[in-house]
Amino acid sequence: MAEIEAKCLEKFKCLKRDMAEINIDPLQRGGILTPEARQALVEWGDGYSICDFCGGALDRIKNPPVEEFVHQVLPPFLGIDEVRVTHGAREGKFAAMHALCSKGDWVIVDGSAHYTTILAAERAGLNIEYVPSSGAPDYKITAEGYQDAIDRVYEKKGNVTMAVLTYPDGNYGNLADAKGVADMCHDYGVPFLLNGAYSVGRMPIKAQDIGADIIVGSGHKSMAACGPVGVMGASEEYARTIFKLSTTKKNKEVELLGCTVRGAPLLTLMASFPMVIDRVKHWDEEVAKARKFEDRMEALGMELQGDKPHNHDLMFFKAENLYEISKTAKKGRFFLYRDLKERGICGIKPGLTRQFKLSTYGLSEVELEKVLSAFEGIISSYPEVKANIKAKTKA
Amino acid sequence: MAEIEAKCLEKFKCLKRDMAEINIDPLQRGGILTPEARQALVEWGDGYSICDFCGGALDRIKNPPVEEFVHQVLPPFLGIDEVRVTHGAREGKFAAMHALCSKGDWVIVDGSAHYTTILAAERAGLNIEYVPSSGAPDYKITAEGYQDAIDRVYEKKGNVTMAVLTYPDGNYGNLADAKGVADMCHDYGVPFLLNGAYSVGRMPIKAQDIGADIIVGSGHKSMAACGPVGVMGASEEYARTIFKLSTTKKNKEVELLGCTVRGAPLLTLMASFPMVIDRVKHWDEEVAKARKFEDRMEALGMELQGDKPHNHDLMFFKAENLYEISKTAKKGRFFLYRDLKERGICGIKPGLTRQFKLSTYGLSEVELEKVLSAFEGIISSYPEVKANIKAKTKA
Repeated sequence: MAEIEAKCLEKFKCLKRDMAEINIDPLQRGGILTPEARQALVEWGDGYSICDFCGGALDRIKNPPVEEFVHQVLPPFLGIDEVRVTHGAREGKFAAMHALCSKGDWVIVDGSAHYTTILAAERAGLNIEYVPSSGAPDYKITAEGYQDAIDRVYEKKGNVTMAVLTYPDGNYGNLADAKGVADMCHDYGVPFLLNGAYSVGRMPIKAQDIGADIIVGSGHKSMAACGPVGVMGASEEYARTIFKLSTTKKNKEVELLGCTVRGAPLLTLMASFPMVIDRVKHWDEEVAKARKFEDRMEALGMELQGDKPHNHDLMFFKAENLYEISKTAKKGRFFLYRDLKERGICGIKPGLTRQFKLSTYGLSEVELEKVLSAFEGIISSYPEVKANIKAKTKA
Repeated sequence: MAEIEAKCLEKFKCLKRDMAEINIDPLQRGGILTPEARQALVEWGDGYSICDFCGGALDRIKNPPVEEFVHQVLPPFLGIDEVRVTHGAREGKFAAMHALCSKGDWVIVDGSAHYTTILAAERAGLNIEYVPSSGAPDYKITAEGYQDAIDRVYEKKGNVTMAVLTYPDGNYGNLADAKGVADMCHDYGVPFLLNGAYSVGRMPIKAQDIGADIIVGSGHKSMAACGPVGVMGASEEYARTIFKLSTTKKNKEVELLGCTVRGAPLLTLMASFPMVIDRVKHWDEEVAKARKFEDRMEALGMELQGDKPHNHDLMFFKAENLYEISKTAKKGRFFLYRDLKERGICGIKPGLTRQFKLSTYGLSEVELEKVLSAFEGIISSYPEVKANIKAKTKA
């Protein structure tokens, strides 16, 4: 291990993002900061600044008013008894599994789950029984699927101690019948965790209306916050175990290792929250925009997968036409990234053409028009493929 | 749970810190951002911006150059084979314990350990055997103490699978004989974890020189970074287990739940790093400043606890004179906080007088002179106590 040369370190000092004007990355659309959150970063950026007047527990800090935010504001927002801030949705899932399940237990997981649900279960030493989706093109997850999965585990004499639903899933943006799944799980006495990383902060969602015992959300994904930060709520019944206090260290919650987000990301979550609580009220407009966008993309020859009509801003498209272009285009499969970037659009992973995800969340009609024009322009600039589309549209 | 009223939320938008000109909080002296880190917050503040060009693993991201930072720069800096970024020192300790120890095992912990070491062990289901310190006024921790603790567990037929030393501890700023402790642990075949939350980023420290198998550091505490962010290094032998990959999710490390610090705090760690690597070279100057400060404080009638002469900027003082003042002063025990604040100093917890911690780290001679003058001026303004000090100084 050689010593580090000073000149090699200069590059770390002033790194800049390589972005376009419009970002359609579903991972990022819901995490764009408000101006207030950006100010909070500068004001509270120094390490441990949040602890200026801490009495020993992050969620009880009065200056800044973390206690009010965590204990007065977040519970009604999530529709659940107790809430804490976490490093993000994945850390919340692990904490819940680690607290409520024992090694060797089984957890039921939707087949469209985010990989972090699998990792959380693996880290907690749990077995996973999947609820398969209906497959292409709908990828539906049903309450009956949960019933079947629980029954399969029971046949194996397994102990089911949690069920997780990704709502919506991060691939297709599908919103399953969460209440149906919750009811089914409760019929079997299985605690139900709702992964709201793509819903909490985007759309109205109340754990109590769905019947979720535990709900996790992501600040950086959907609450206009700087990562890593998230929220975890639990009903009274499970909160006692998940947020249990240390046997020796007063007022310290074991699963949270005392305090979680001891820094500025929490302040960004708080600073953006007035905007977030307002934007979820306009969710119907977001869905309308997404559907309109979906129609236009399909008219261009790309095919939406998942719920139709769509109920979320996260959309997965199959694009055989773009794939055809990639076969002969300069730079091959990277042409789409380049061509979109030239038109002021980024957020589709470099190298993807045949299938990709995007999000319309928070974009104006004018911006969406620009995105659609970009796709249209790109396809038009490769004449053979354009001809194919015209033929298809006429048919 | 009532609905949230919009007007109650306005306060979260533009929260300001209530600070003085000079902050002597040991928790915060090492976490003050560089101008570059503050710029990084603004540039990379948006949620998941670090994932613009992610190929599936945080530590392998090339743009921004996280991979180079984590795999090329941090290992020689910490003097260890493998490094990852974490949410902070506590999360690193838990990950190491969770990966390397089994429920019911024993971990040996110094009696001056940070509470999060205890929580990490408790969360991992481990028993704790303490190495008691020598008590007031030195609070020394010795290698023999580790030997005795291991022997005690063996007498109980316990399985010792980790030993932790807090280096320095967060109460007295004592630097124990870490190499001696490491050697002792290795004689018993016990993996040794060094908690460098108050050393990594402040002073030169190489795990290999000490013989630490695992080392954790804190970005927000000692590396001029915005929290939460930290580092964890492990020797090859233990890295394989701590950073083991998922059995089903390609390239995802289970104990890290895939990715840890997926946000701007990591960019602040990187942006400040050129300054950090430089400042640890000037550690001898920091120690000299601390010792000079210590002498002056003792001349004012306050008594340093812990290592004497002191070897770290974190200092714990007993101040019977200030305690005497608090008995009659306006606002009682809050007088010291108020009187220091009036003189441009903050960082000692409101309400403390009889004993408190502070840090001289990174403060200029002029600033330290101002801090000392503040203490002197406060004591002078309460004449009876001043008379006592004069008598003591003459004797």
